[in-house]
Amino acid sequence: MKIEIIGAGAVGLLVASFLAEKQASVKLITRTEQQAVQLKVNNLMRTNCDGTTSVFPIDAAASLSGDADIIVIAVKYGQLQDVFKQLQTVKPTTPILFLQNGLAHYDEALRLPFHQIAFCSVQFGAQKINEYHVAHKGIGPMKIAVAKGEKIFFSHLGAYSSERFLIVFEGDAEAMLLEKAWLNCFINPLTAILQVPNGQLIQRIDAFQLLKKLYNEMIMAFPQFAENFHFEQVVALCERTAENTSSMLADVLAGRETEIETIVGAIIKKAHIDNKQLPILQTLYLLVKALEESGERM
Amino acid sequence: MKIEIIGAGAVGLLVASFLAEKQASVKLITRTEQQAVQLKVNNLMRTNCDGTTSVFPIDAAASLSGDADIIVIAVKYGQLQDVFKQLQTVKPTTPILFLQNGLAHYDEALRLPFHQIAFCSVQFGAQKINEYHVAHKGIGPMKIAVAKGEKIFFSHLGAYSSERFLIVFEGDAEAMLLEKAWLNCFINPLTAILQVPNGQLIQRIDAFQLLKKLYNEMIMAFPQFAENFHFEQVVALCERTAENTSSMLADVLAGRETEIETIVGAIIKKAHIDNKQLPILQTLYLLVKALEESGERM
Repeated sequence: MKIEIIGAGAVGLLVASFLAEKQASVKLITRTEQQAVQLKVNNLMRTNCDGTTSVFPIDAAASLSGDADIIVIAVKYGQLQDVFKQLQTVKPTTPILFLQNGLAHYDEALRLPFHQIAFCSVQFGAQKINEYHVAHKGIGPMKIAVAKGEKIFFSHLGAYSSERFLIVFEGDAEAMLLEKAWLNCFINPLTAILQVPNGQLIQRIDAFQLLKKLYNEMIMAFPQFAENFHFEQVVALCERTAENTSSMLADVLAGRETEIETIVGAIIKKAHIDNKQLPILQTLYLLVKALEESGERM
Repeated sequence: MKIEIIGAGAVGLLVASFLAEKQASVKLITRTEQQAVQLKVNNLMRTNCDGTTSVFPIDAAASLSGDADIIVIAVKYGQLQDVFKQLQTVKPTTPILFLQNGLAHYDEALRLPFHQIAFCSVQFGAQKINEYHVAHKGIGPMKIAVAKGEKIFFSHLGAYSSERFLIVFEGDAEAMLLEKAWLNCFINPLTAILQVPNGQLIQRIDAFQLLKKLYNEMIMAFPQFAENFHFEQVVALCERTAENTSSMLADVLAGRETEIETIVGAIIKKAHIDNKQLPILQTLYLLVKALEESGERM
C-alpha cells in the first residue's frame, strides 16, 4: 500500500519517519524539487526523545504520483488551498487523511469530491531541524477519526502503530478536532501575548488567575468538556511543558502567521452558533491578531 | 502665600515651573538632599512645547518647612504612604492638594485629619529630563476639585493660571478622578500589552476592533459617560497622540511598577460595586499585571 504524505514540515517528516520505521511504503510530497532531492540523498533523519538519531531511506517528489493508495495531508491550514488544486487530478476513491490543527478545515474538506475522508488530531511534539531532519519532542498519540466513507479504508494504518507513535481510532471526527482546539485555547494565546514559556502561566499570580477565569468561561460555553477536563489538568499541562515555547508564541516571535484563526477563531465561532459569549477568549484572540499585524514591538 | 510641592518628578517639576513663572512662592520638597541642592544651584529648567527653554530660580529642601500655606502632593500613588508619615507634623488646617492619577488614593486621603483637602486631575504631558529639568509635552488643564472643606482655601491658586497652564475648578472631585481614570483605561493597558505607540491602536484592524469592544463594555458599565464621550473621541485621542509612548507602556518597558492598580483596578472595583462586569478590561488588567511580574520577555 502506497502512502503519500503532502507536506514535509515537522509533522509530515515525523509521521513519515514512524511509518517508514514500520516498513510502510511512504513517499513525501515536498513543495520544492530541491527538498525532494535532499531527502532522497540524505535519507530522512529523526532525533528521538531520548536523544538518539534514527535514519530512514525515503522516497520523495515534488508532485503526487497519481496512484497512491492513501493521501495524508500534512500542510498547515494556510497552504490547503494550494493542496486542493493538486488533488484535482486524484481519483475520488483515494482515501484522504487530514492532519491540521483546529477546525477551520473541517467543513471545506468534507465538500471535496472524495469518498473517503478522515481527520487526525496529533498529540505528539515535532520540531523541524532542516529539510530532511526532524526532532521528536514529546510522545503522544495520533488520533484518527473517519468523517466520510468507511473506517475500513483507514484502519490498516493501525498496523504501523508503535509504542512511541501510537495510532488510535476515534468515533467522532468533529468532536475530536473540537476537543483539541478547545485545549489549545488555554496555553497558546496567553503565552503568545505575554511572550513567556508555558510554565509562567501558572508561576505568575495574575496569569494564573486569568487562566482560571478563562477556564471557567470555556466550561460555561462548552459544558460537554466539564466532566473530562478539570482545571487541574490545564495546570498539569503547563507544569509538564513548563520550559516549552508554545507554537503560537514561536510564530509570533518569528513574525509568522499564527494558527489563531483556525484554533481560537474556530472555537469562538462554534460558541457563537450556540449563542455563547467568550469575552476573555475574544480579547486574547484580537490581541494575538493585533500582534500578528506587525511582528515588531517597541 | 507659600506653596510647598512634595515630589520633584515630572509632574511636580512642571507644576512648580508654571507657578514660579507666575511669581508664586514655591518650594519643592525632594526625596533626596542632593536633588534639592541641584535644583537650587542649577535653577528649575523647563523645555516648552515649542522647543524653547525657560529657567526659574526655585527653592527646594528635603523636608517640609512646617509653615506652608498649602501643600501639593505630586508623588506617585506608591509613595503616598511615605508622604502621609511626613504630613503627621503638619497643622491640620493646612490645605492639601493631591495630584495623583486614578482613584485609589481618594478614600485614604479623605481619612487624613486635614480640614481642607482637594484633588487634581492633570491633563498636560510632562517628561522629566533630569533632576532639575522637565519637558512640557502637551498642553492641557490642571483641574482642581475640593472634596473636604471650602473652595476658598484653594481658589487663590486660580491666580497662577496661564494660557499654557490653565487652572480650572470642578465641582465633584470623585467624579473628576473617575472620568480621568475611565479615559485612561482605553489607551494605557492596550498599548502596554501590545507594546506599540498610541496610534497603532487605530491603525491595526484587530486592535481597533478590540478598542471598540472595550468602549462598548465601558459605556455599558458607566452609562453616565455615554453622552460626553463618544467612541470618535477615543479615536481622535489616539490620532492626536499617535507617536506617543503611553505612560503604562513606558513603565512596562522600563520594568517599573505601572499605575494599573490605581487606574484600571480602581475602575473595575467601581464597576463591581454596581454589579457591572468588565470582562475585557479585567482581561487586560490581569495581562498587564502578569507583565509586571517580570520585566523580561522571550
